[in-house]
Amino acid sequence: MKTILPLRLAMVGGGPGAFIGAVHRTAALMDGEFTLVAGALSSDSDKCQERAAEWGIAPARAYESWRQMLEREAALPPETRAEVISIVTPNHLHHEVAIAALDAGFHVACDKPMTTSSANATAMAEAVARSAKLFLLTHNYTGAPMVREARELVARGEEGPIGTLRKVYVEYLQGWLSEDLESSGQKQASWRTNPALNGPGGSLGDIGTHAHNLAEFITGQKITRLLGARRSFVEGRAVDDDAMALIEFESGADGMLRCSQVCVGRENGLSIQLFGTKGGLEWRQEHPNDLTIYSANEGPLTRRTGNGYLSAFAQSSGRVPAGHPEGYLESFANLYREFAAAIRSGGAMPEHLPSIAAGVRGVQFIERVIASSEAGSTWR
Amino acid sequence: MKTILPLRLAMVGGGPGAFIGAVHRTAALMDGEFTLVAGALSSDSDKCQERAAEWGIAPARAYESWRQMLEREAALPPETRAEVISIVTPNHLHHEVAIAALDAGFHVACDKPMTTSSANATAMAEAVARSAKLFLLTHNYTGAPMVREARELVARGEEGPIGTLRKVYVEYLQGWLSEDLESSGQKQASWRTNPALNGPGGSLGDIGTHAHNLAEFITGQKITRLLGARRSFVEGRAVDDDAMALIEFESGADGMLRCSQVCVGRENGLSIQLFGTKGGLEWRQEHPNDLTIYSANEGPLTRRTGNGYLSAFAQSSGRVPAGHPEGYLESFANLYREFAAAIRSGGAMPEHLPSIAAGVRGVQFIERVIASSEAGSTWR
Amino acid sequence: MKTILPLRLAMVGGGPGAFIGAVHRTAALMDGEFTLVAGALSSDSDKCQERAAEWGIAPARAYESWRQMLEREAALPPETRAEVISIVTPNHLHHEVAIAALDAGFHVACDKPMTTSSANATAMAEAVARSAKLFLLTHNYTGAPMVREARELVARGEEGPIGTLRKVYVEYLQGWLSEDLESSGQKQASWRTNPALNGPGGSLGDIGTHAHNLAEFITGQKITRLLGARRSFVEGRAVDDDAMALIEFESGADGMLRCSQVCVGRENGLSIQLFGTKGGLEWRQEHPNDLTIYSANEGPLTRRTGNGYLSAFAQSSGRVPAGHPEGYLESFANLYREFAAAIRSGGAMPEHLPSIAAGVRGVQFIERVIASSEAGSTWR
Amino acid sequence: MKTILPLRLAMVGGGPGAFIGAVHRTAALMDGEFTLVAGALSSDSDKCQERAAEWGIAPARAYESWRQMLEREAALPPETRAEVISIVTPNHLHHEVAIAALDAGFHVACDKPMTTSSANATAMAEAVARSAKLFLLTHNYTGAPMVREARELVARGEEGPIGTLRKVYVEYLQGWLSEDLESSGQKQASWRTNPALNGPGGSLGDIGTHAHNLAEFITGQKITRLLGARRSFVEGRAVDDDAMALIEFESGADGMLRCSQVCVGRENGLSIQLFGTKGGLEWRQEHPNDLTIYSANEGPLTRRTGNGYLSAFAQSSGRVPAGHPEGYLESFANLYREFAAAIRSGGAMPEHLPSIAAGVRGVQFIERVIASSEAGSTWR
Repeated sequence: MKTILPLRLAMVGGGPGAFIGAVHRTAALMDGEFTLVAGALSSDSDKCQERAAEWGIAPARAYESWRQMLEREAALPPETRAEVISIVTPNHLHHEVAIAALDAGFHVACDKPMTTSSANATAMAEAVARSAKLFLLTHNYTGAPMVREARELVARGEEGPIGTLRKVYVEYLQGWLSEDLESSGQKQASWRTNPALNGPGGSLGDIGTHAHNLAEFITGQKITRLLGARRSFVEGRAVDDDAMALIEFESGADGMLRCSQVCVGRENGLSIQLFGTKGGLEWRQEHPNDLTIYSANEGPLTRRTGNGYLSAFAQSSGRVPAGHPEGYLESFANLYREFAAAIRSGGAMPEHLPSIAAGVRGVQFIERVIASSEAGSTWR
Repeated sequence: MKTILPLRLAMVGGGPGAFIGAVHRTAALMDGEFTLVAGALSSDSDKCQERAAEWGIAPARAYESWRQMLEREAALPPETRAEVISIVTPNHLHHEVAIAALDAGFHVACDKPMTTSSANATAMAEAVARSAKLFLLTHNYTGAPMVREARELVARGEEGPIGTLRKVYVEYLQGWLSEDLESSGQKQASWRTNPALNGPGGSLGDIGTHAHNLAEFITGQKITRLLGARRSFVEGRAVDDDAMALIEFESGADGMLRCSQVCVGRENGLSIQLFGTKGGLEWRQEHPNDLTIYSANEGPLTRRTGNGYLSAFAQSSGRVPAGHPEGYLESFANLYREFAAAIRSGGAMPEHLPSIAAGVRGVQFIERVIASSEAGSTWR
Repeated sequence: MKTILPLRLAMVGGGPGAFIGAVHRTAALMDGEFTLVAGALSSDSDKCQERAAEWGIAPARAYESWRQMLEREAALPPETRAEVISIVTPNHLHHEVAIAALDAGFHVACDKPMTTSSANATAMAEAVARSAKLFLLTHNYTGAPMVREARELVARGEEGPIGTLRKVYVEYLQGWLSEDLESSGQKQASWRTNPALNGPGGSLGDIGTHAHNLAEFITGQKITRLLGARRSFVEGRAVDDDAMALIEFESGADGMLRCSQVCVGRENGLSIQLFGTKGGLEWRQEHPNDLTIYSANEGPLTRRTGNGYLSAFAQSSGRVPAGHPEGYLESFANLYREFAAAIRSGGAMPEHLPSIAAGVRGVQFIERVIASSEAGSTWR
Repeated sequence: MKTILPLRLAMVGGGPGAFIGAVHRTAALMDGEFTLVAGALSSDSDKCQERAAEWGIAPARAYESWRQMLEREAALPPETRAEVISIVTPNHLHHEVAIAALDAGFHVACDKPMTTSSANATAMAEAVARSAKLFLLTHNYTGAPMVREARELVARGEEGPIGTLRKVYVEYLQGWLSEDLESSGQKQASWRTNPALNGPGGSLGDIGTHAHNLAEFITGQKITRLLGARRSFVEGRAVDDDAMALIEFESGADGMLRCSQVCVGRENGLSIQLFGTKGGLEWRQEHPNDLTIYSANEGPLTRRTGNGYLSAFAQSSGRVPAGHPEGYLESFANLYREFAAAIRSGGAMPEHLPSIAAGVRGVQFIERVIASSEAGSTWR
């Protein structure tokens, strides 16, 4: 038996005050599949060292810049140097870092939305294509066991409890930007409402892409046409804080998508309801261990994480027996765990893991809603 | 003290196999405010007599036709004859019966949608205007105590927990027409999918108008602009069984409305979420005694029917102390009870009771969505 | 066809400030099965007349005392006089009124708990036995459609989803007596905490008997042994405001029962969970249209009122189609509706309707818990 | 700045087929506070090596027995050797391993119940007392943010929303042992129903101790008196699979505790409701991010993990912003994270972390319920 050593991970971004960097670290560490060995954690050198010390990264591998990190890590001996780069910066930096990392021979795990324009997305896709490396886009909700169960049930088509898909309603409602938080200097609000750092879509990029991705992941279909309206409710805000769309899927199913960051009191209200010719499904992120299944001749059934009646896909996506709730970090960790397995296998990304194609589609989604909205809500 | 005698009610429609007639009867009887004295309950004379016997109506007042009923009742002595006509027929008959009844000096309670075209609606409005009689449109959900609490909270504006309205999401999802039930001869499905009896809007008329009315009732605002898409999922169906719309309110708030009768397994999924600058609300018809209130600095609060912390309007809309659930029939009965009070007072309809104006708006709503949909989803 | 005329009802109790009188009236009127023709509504003659006027009772039939009422009504012609007496007074009066009414040839509907001692209960049972009249005890929760569905599912035994019963957990938690409300003069609190009016059991009589009855109704079994502890948390209170018991059923199943009126913020938290060898059930009064069914190899299933998949018993206990909530008053009205049918049929009470035997058992339950508690919680 | 290196952890137990070992590993790894360096993972040497390889433990540190491990690790240089021993074996081994580990100079994290008899518990307490080492008992639910919020709210006494405590209802209901699973050879069922491995309490030890601990943790009070009944519903089972108790707290509050493993379809139904003079609380393990707060003059309020309105204790117990659910593993990881901090500080265990005293009380609880039950349910 060969001892399975953790993969060596380096992080770009994730300094003090950031949120998603710590999430990626926990997700990567949770199963012992990764060890965090290096980081360009902040453009402020002191902050980078501070975080590195806190996170057990040797001072010498807490770099001043991501370029320095890529260069120096690439120069280390193969058994020491980082194998995977996690990109957790504001969105506008993703593409540059990712392309450089791929070209330097690193695998890349990148936060979403993937980048700020289709042009960048295309360049990233080309970088993935020319590298022999793997690229993970951390659309974490696709790691939730009951989301995966939903996907399996839909995929069964006429043999399954849903039948042929007709309607999809997806939404992601938050309230944290219902006031002009960015003017207060709050770090998360500041960069996420700045189009130069976040891209042109505010709520669209931050949470609309999650809703879009979730709908495509569970249905196994592309949204081929949409009509949208976005706006900013908070005066002076430079990006949208709210958007709505009618959506159509390739099979002819249709539905609605909405995202908002001005729904006061809502936390992370990502939910999806869908209906086919035989039944329906409902999943709510804030109670992620429940999946409601609707049918014509019985009352709603609630399937729950960890049970033997679930599909193999959903079962293998949990860590604990039924009745022990799995949360946000576990769904995130599933992506890292499966990414590690893909890297170790030397093969390609498994079909269900969000990758470069999902990233490209997410950026296109933002651009399509914006274009439709600016044209007075016409179909795209 | 004067003994308060029940008002005398006559019904058009409501024969065996119908659903809404029995509901109107129970709603009218529940508080002892009405007694059912006459009926043109079915076009089939035997069925009319059968139902009349079951419902305690004397055979002589179980009429062969509504025309006969109006004529003969009007000829009875004032202390005997019916005072109020309830119209619970398929939609296409509403306008003719209502106009004749009003013109013959009866008050009218009419089921919704009010009628099948704007032209009819206008004629009805004229009949109401020229009569000295009252007209109730039974948009029953406006009678639910927690819907009324919601309306009160929104009406408080900046002084209240919601602030200035921004977003309204309303939906009414059913599943009972997800298959071609009408071909099986099921009575409800047959007339409701027949445009000649139901009007041009299927789901739009049957449940979309409820969603529309609920949104306008709670917000106290009109939907001034909308963009819609409707369709039939079941092959061969002559009316829509599904519709979606982006909506805008007079104040600048906006949102989404959807209705569907093909959401398998959903029963009467009428729900509304709305958000303002300070907080939000959520109400779900299937658990009608709960109203969730969202705010920025605390978790969601659930207010419940019958409690002393509710507005006077909500408190006076219940019959039992807190913790004893009020249901669909009680909300319906509130309309009848308040209609009786208005009739007895000899005055006008109270502002909050759905009346002719709500009926006109409902018909216009159907027509606007159809027009928008046929134009490829353009704003109206 | 013979027109079905409403049965004539007279009420004892139910004056202004009372709660349960109005509930009985609404429950009786709702289906048109009864008409309220007479009342001894208050010991205060003015209040009796006031309420009579409000309720449409002729002044001549608003009596000064229940004795006067029984006497004068009995002297009226058969086609006019009251047929059924509803007793909605404080508990200490039930037995005297009921016995007199039965002996005078009236059917009786009596609120619960039936009376204040076993001796009284026995006397009432004898009166029922010697009369040819029917006696209804309004344990209203047994009228809820999903409670009835639960009873049906348990009754199926090994053929059904529950199997052989093992565990029953039942509770009724309220908070309205968590302070010394009786000293403020609040009418409900005053008589319900006065042992002379309410009987020796406070929470035990008021709500503990509901929990006891619900457990016996759904399981179809008697609680044969119990061990209890009761107490008063509010200083100076003359009756218990809280009680707990271990319970055993005739089949060997066991469980726990609790009732409390000091659970601040709880409204009418009556709920039951039970489990057998094959599955389990859960019902909560405050969301009465849902019944959760647990099983070994699937997630929990929620059955809901009004659906075709329910037992005939549950289906016939509703008034409206699936998705339209039925509430407290409808469950109460079911008892009156079925009582009317039993009276009209001239036969006996249907087995499922709570009658004199349930009343006797309720009184014994109170006495057993008190005896056990006073002996330091020993088995009885 | 000094780089914070992970503490070195060694595990006893946790081989293939076990459940709780993997949980401890994940909980320890999640925050990067521990690295798993050694293990006596199975009495079967091959299985130990297999698991060690899978978990990244060097073959040389995958030991044949826990005695061997303690001896050899203690002989390693201080900068290499394990610092903490996690004990995740069946219960009967806990005391021997823990005492030896403490005596050999290791900190100990031990699964619950702590051991199988009071005598063992006392011996363990003496070992903790004579060592300079820390001892963590992994009562993981005490790590859940909303459980901690509950504890804080109760601790505020009359100043807080609960006031003086009156009632506590706690339960832990599972269904997985509703059949004779142990005869099938299922590993978890086999040892947990074997008194020689599990101790005399079946459900009492496995889940009753969780309920007991949760009640004492949240109330900050000891259960000073109880009366219980335990039994086995499954024929031939050597330990209890169900227990019930009336409980009394040192302040005079009382309540009920129940645990069962025959509630078919229930997963890990640990929940607690408590009420004081001013308000109440409710927490359910299966939706652990919600805490319901009851009060007299408003509806129930739901507080949720990650929000700024929570106590500092609850806020510091989370890892992600509001709306991202925390699960079972995060609550478990909180204990490990805080244990690491305590070890690093060189000081004592923080008062809130479950330690040797909680372990002793848990064992006494099991013994008290058994003694009461055997005496026919008398107070102890």
